[in-house]
Amino acid sequence: NEQPGYQVETHPQELFLTAGASQGLDLACTLFAKSGDLVFVEEPTYFVIEKIFREHNLDVVGVSTDEHGMIVSDLRDKLESGMRPKFVYVIPTFQNPTGVSLSESRREELMVLAEEYDFFIFADEVYQLIYFDAPPLPPLRAFDKHNRAISFGSFSKILAPGLRTGWIHAAEETVAKFTSSALAFSGGGFNQFGSVLIKHVIDLGLLKKNTDLLRKVYSDRSRLMGDALLREFGSSVAYTCPKGGFYYWIQFPEGFDTEKFLSECEDQGVSYRPGNSFSESGKFARYLRLTFTLYEETEIKEGVSRLGAAYKKFT
Amino acid sequence: NEQPGYQVETHPQELFLTAGASQGLDLACTLFAKSGDLVFVEEPTYFVIEKIFREHNLDVVGVSTDEHGMIVSDLRDKLESGMRPKFVYVIPTFQNPTGVSLSESRREELMVLAEEYDFFIFADEVYQLIYFDAPPLPPLRAFDKHNRAISFGSFSKILAPGLRTGWIHAAEETVAKFTSSALAFSGGGFNQFGSVLIKHVIDLGLLKKNTDLLRKVYSDRSRLMGDALLREFGSSVAYTCPKGGFYYWIQFPEGFDTEKFLSECEDQGVSYRPGNSFSESGKFARYLRLTFTLYEETEIKEGVSRLGAAYKKFT
Repeated sequence: NEQPGYQVETHPQELFLTAGASQGLDLACTLFAKSGDLVFVEEPTYFVIEKIFREHNLDVVGVSTDEHGMIVSDLRDKLESGMRPKFVYVIPTFQNPTGVSLSESRREELMVLAEEYDFFIFADEVYQLIYFDAPPLPPLRAFDKHNRAISFGSFSKILAPGLRTGWIHAAEETVAKFTSSALAFSGGGFNQFGSVLIKHVIDLGLLKKNTDLLRKVYSDRSRLMGDALLREFGSSVAYTCPKGGFYYWIQFPEGFDTEKFLSECEDQGVSYRPGNSFSESGKFARYLRLTFTLYEETEIKEGVSRLGAAYKKFT
Repeated sequence: NEQPGYQVETHPQELFLTAGASQGLDLACTLFAKSGDLVFVEEPTYFVIEKIFREHNLDVVGVSTDEHGMIVSDLRDKLESGMRPKFVYVIPTFQNPTGVSLSESRREELMVLAEEYDFFIFADEVYQLIYFDAPPLPPLRAFDKHNRAISFGSFSKILAPGLRTGWIHAAEETVAKFTSSALAFSGGGFNQFGSVLIKHVIDLGLLKKNTDLLRKVYSDRSRLMGDALLREFGSSVAYTCPKGGFYYWIQFPEGFDTEKFLSECEDQGVSYRPGNSFSESGKFARYLRLTFTLYEETEIKEGVSRLGAAYKKFT
């Protein structure tokens, strides 16, 4: 209730502490899927998680996205064609890499499909509290009538990545699966020391202070990056200014290749992650992802201006 | 070189930091095996790891043990009969639960078999530094001519479990598999904060001090438990006094059932882990495991005397 961005009732028995969202997702793969099982992800999606799924020998299939997030009707088509996933991995809010959020009606439809076709939703909601002007839609648990959603949160994005602590928020019976896993039994928990530190941080009100500060700083940096992009690129590229999260997802003209462009940029001393690293479909050659969270204002200006100079030289 | 118990050359590029031995083993399962793969363990073995293997849908088969550890000729028979494991999980030194150590000739033969039949050895060596009188045989890496051994160490047993930090020691190319895993990439490491704390602890010489202290304290407690067992049970049970590690593995007369005996003991306010929880073979009904590390001397005496009273009442 301290966090207006979270907006969903939370009971202690529905929470489980992890060593970060990825560790939680990795454990969930072990507990909820077997080698060869099918899982769906958004296209594009967070490339590291896709690799974790592949390391578990899961069969990863992409579902198309647009400015309202995963196109749930595309997911329905795939399900109706007979595909049976163990889970659907989705980043509903301020998606990585696109920055967009899943609409309310799609959230509802996604949860209906999960129940109808008997799969879990792995909801990576690590950007939920990083909103700029208004709080985003509530986490998927708010739309979860049949306990199909497992939400993965992290203190890495809102406090300190090095503490390696995150949480799972899910139905009590789902949390029990994590709690009774052998790996949790072995260590007695995934990060006792970090968790205790964070408890004190929360009790002292410092987490609230920090998320307020991050929202302000990241919002300023995001706006600054937007201004710089407009100045350097005008209408030659397309993007939506993010309403939260970490990323700008930039679309270049048709035929543009952001992997080739990268070496020109690196010559100019600036870098980014090319669109195709977020999907194996090869559909995102004209896209690139920029992030603004780590950099000071002068660095952002300088970076975008180097990107613009590289673009002029390249085209 | 500060630790005479380690006795094996170690290069930085052969080390990888984990969030504890179990987390390292869990990641190794993901990276080195697929659902349905076969793995061998000692019989009996550390029951929690066996469960972790099963959560990865691995097919777990036991290899017999005696007072010199895993009977490697039994392993050879299984291999010659056509069984092909992805890895063999072994606790070579001060085994859990038996307390015994794998002999030198068996260490050598095990490594020969690993090369001949193309599998890895997952060596759980978390008790390596907890020896009482003389250092144990060196870790399996010392016998590893073909880079088949992956050693899992932990600060949990020698410093503080709550810090959730351990290490993997293996050939450089094996370590590279862990380093380049998606999960390691995602977090940038499994416990940065804990690792930095431990670095300072080591640099200040406190780890050496602590392992020296643990050896002394555990050695005293182990001897005390041995004396108490002799006093309470005389020759009605059999056991070997451990030369290191955490455990007494007690054999009762044929036909004795330590699962049934447990409720009598719990009525007397003392507990233990019954032998059959360390193997699904059901061969260890007459065994139980005691641990002495956590308890003060008076508690150990009181515990063993309650165990003796329960035994008298039960038989």
